[in-house]
Amino acid sequence: MAEKIKILVTNDDGIYSEGLIVLAKALREVGDVFVVAPQTEKSAIAHSLTLHRPLRVEKIKKNIYAVDGTPADCVHLGVNAILLERPRLIVSGINKGGNLGDDVTYSGTVSAAFEGTLLGIPSFAISLVSRSHFKFHTAARFAVKVAHHILKKGLPKDTLLNINVPNLKEEEIKSYKITQQGRWTHNGSGVIEKVDPRGKKYYWIGGGQLVFDKGKDTDFEAVSHSYISITPLHLDLTNYSSIRDLKKWRI
Amino acid sequence: MAEKIKILVTNDDGIYSEGLIVLAKALREVGDVFVVAPQTEKSAIAHSLTLHRPLRVEKIKKNIYAVDGTPADCVHLGVNAILLERPRLIVSGINKGGNLGDDVTYSGTVSAAFEGTLLGIPSFAISLVSRSHFKFHTAARFAVKVAHHILKKGLPKDTLLNINVPNLKEEEIKSYKITQQGRWTHNGSGVIEKVDPRGKKYYWIGGGQLVFDKGKDTDFEAVSHSYISITPLHLDLTNYSSIRDLKKWRI
Repeated sequence: MAEKIKILVTNDDGIYSEGLIVLAKALREVGDVFVVAPQTEKSAIAHSLTLHRPLRVEKIKKNIYAVDGTPADCVHLGVNAILLERPRLIVSGINKGGNLGDDVTYSGTVSAAFEGTLLGIPSFAISLVSRSHFKFHTAARFAVKVAHHILKKGLPKDTLLNINVPNLKEEEIKSYKITQQGRWTHNGSGVIEKVDPRGKKYYWIGGGQLVFDKGKDTDFEAVSHSYISITPLHLDLTNYSSIRDLKKWRI
Repeated sequence: MAEKIKILVTNDDGIYSEGLIVLAKALREVGDVFVVAPQTEKSAIAHSLTLHRPLRVEKIKKNIYAVDGTPADCVHLGVNAILLERPRLIVSGINKGGNLGDDVTYSGTVSAAFEGTLLGIPSFAISLVSRSHFKFHTAARFAVKVAHHILKKGLPKDTLLNINVPNLKEEEIKSYKITQQGRWTHNGSGVIEKVDPRGKKYYWIGGGQLVFDKGKDTDFEAVSHSYISITPLHLDLTNYSSIRDLKKWRI
């Protein structure tokens, strides 16, 4: 029997998240799945690497490891210390909640795919756009198809896929679209100010209202019309189109 | 006397970092400076927002506030809760150490400028490429020039500047260059595995060797030739050039 390829699966909702479990199980038809995921929930942790303290790895059972760190830590340790063989694919998710528009710059789920791409391994992130009643199986089934495709075709250089799946039954999904990253507009302040039981002020980020810019061909547009959104993101953040203008500056 | 414009200054080395203090002082010739910075060092924290717990703000003295959170938290709270007036400019730094190439995806310093840009305020990050003997004044002086320029000309849409300054005396700096983000290549594993005093294994991210791809016009090339590097980065991470190829996929 031919040696099976290795797939590293992680997330930012933590190792006991149902989205991760369903995803890992589904991907077993593609290869040997190794789960290396945060012990606890790490949402909005962005692309943090833990450099100031050591990391602990706990083997939960065969091929399943919990790390007391971030999703990027999990990928870094998974590839460089835990798996004996280099994985051919890294999949991050299934996240409980979308990672649309500017969310990607905060997203722990997406950051794991970023870290994988930095390490030169084809990677994608997959998220379910909902706040409850998650239909993980729809997303997991699509992840399997994408995995097969990437293993056959590869990915463009320095590019990861950010996939967002509408929270629908498989038969309700129209198809998928290749999209671009949308933009949120902030309405209101996004900070709640309160007073604690001891009379001291505290702040909580959140509140305010986020409204999507009505761009065509965006991730948000696709998902809101019952399409799965696939956005190719790249590691190079340079705004090339602005370089010519900036070269005219005389600082 | 005309009302002075407000400038928000932050960093990821923490509120007591010399780089921050020198920067804030220098920028006073441009406007009213408000410092809102992390209580403690937050390097490699990337673009984290703290959502799972409340944040505390401590007023250190007039216009100087410490937050028990990340650089992105500081910008978010600074703009939405602490400053009474919207700042016209956000400056993050001066970081002890460069933020070159792929570093930008991990960098707390750069993430603060990202957050400012998300909030629609012109923002830049400034870092000193060295590990010791920091010549902060060279960088602070350049930050003042850039600040004046941005206030006059603005910045391209959804774009921040990532500035890296060689650790030289002002007269040794040749000039500045508008650059693109370079790429690191990882040599070796980048994880050190050890055993603690109680015989338990632990891992520490680091080690290995990072080598810069020898790209032309990159941030790294500029700095290594005694030029200040200015890289325009944008919020939209879409790899547009790959969309056409991906549209040929039949998943």
